Amino acid sequence: MRLHDFTGSGNGHKVRLLLSNLGQEYELIEHNILNGETHTADFLARNPGGKIPVLETDDGKHLPESNAILWYLAEDTAFMPKDAWGRAQALRWMFFEQYSHEPYIAVARFWLHFVDMTPEQKIQLSEKQDRGNQALEIMEQHLAAHDWFAGDNYSIADIALYGYTHVAGEGGFDLGKYPSIKSWLLRIESQKGHIAMEPH
Amino acid sequence: MRLHDFTGSGNGHKVRLLLSNLGQEYELIEHNILNGETHTADFLARNPGGKIPVLETDDGKHLPESNAILWYLAEDTAFMPKDAWGRAQALRWMFFEQYSHEPYIAVARFWLHFVDMTPEQKIQLSEKQDRGNQALEIMEQHLAAHDWFAGDNYSIADIALYGYTHVAGEGGFDLGKYPSIKSWLLRIESQKGHIAMEPH
Repeated sequence: MRLHDFTGSGNGHKVRLLLSNLGQEYELIEHNILNGETHTADFLARNPGGKIPVLETDDGKHLPESNAILWYLAEDTAFMPKDAWGRAQALRWMFFEQYSHEPYIAVARFWLHFVDMTPEQKIQLSEKQDRGNQALEIMEQHLAAHDWFAGDNYSIADIALYGYTHVAGEGGFDLGKYPSIKSWLLRIESQKGHIAMEPH
Repeated sequence: MRLHDFTGSGNGHKVRLLLSNLGQEYELIEHNILNGETHTADFLARNPGGKIPVLETDDGKHLPESNAILWYLAEDTAFMPKDAWGRAQALRWMFFEQYSHEPYIAVARFWLHFVDMTPEQKIQLSEKQDRGNQALEIMEQHLAAHDWFAGDNYSIADIALYGYTHVAGEGGFDLGKYPSIKSWLLRIESQKGHIAMEPH
């Protein structure tokens, strides 16, 4: 299989992390999102949304959306909760990640770490950080009472939330305020086949 | 089971529609989001994110996130694709809905239909509508070649996208520009047990 990705992306890192945990071989095709390489006609035929990551199967089918890719790769593996309630909880946190976490933490990181902010973005940054801290507080509250997000084991829910949480410092977030998150990051980083994001 | 909901919400409507398609009985608990009723201590104990809908099971467990609730209710029913690729495609469109559709179409509708817009919201409205139209264009492109979003049948992917698409007019969107979406809405509305959103 091939993964169309940008190695500075936390959404892409989720997929690369699961593939590494699984010991699955794949070909990485890098697209620099900073140069418009995900808005070419060739790329839009793979994902009309113009976003990485996109998984390309050996028979040429394409699957966008990082958390849908995680689900597809994890079915029938140890990284998917075994019971229906556990799977529901995994998706609950994966939708939380895409709606209430990524739009604030990933965007603040992108503005501070990858681009020169526009005056409008400079004004909006503190609101993005406030909302990102609200997401981190909800995670902290859960992790104060549970080791993992869905069921009793490391799963794709943890991988989905790890993607941008472990690089939140690059978005101006102080993870020192969240001791349970810090312990959870260490638990994830001790899993077999773990990989952190490459520095960018 | 009980559904904590606000009947003006498209996210809530998704769940009510699937429950009606399934013929499943449930108790509806209405929380007026316009009066802060989802930010009380009682509600936050059900969902720390302070958002409806939340499914409460008969044994008192809680599940937030509309699309996670759809998944949980649809497992082992005709509304879930039967093969792994179909399930992956369903999730691909459900994550698209929460990341690239709802934040624009639902927000434009909320501003125009439920509240008096602030001056800042009035400035941001046209960008929300532009992004919402981008999402509708991606749906139109898919529906020009396929009857349904995932696999060959009506599924939770269609229900997830129906929630805010069928009331997009209340957000200032002109569905007359999207003939394939209009045909798809009619196909959904002919399904057994269909319910439209109650007027608000």
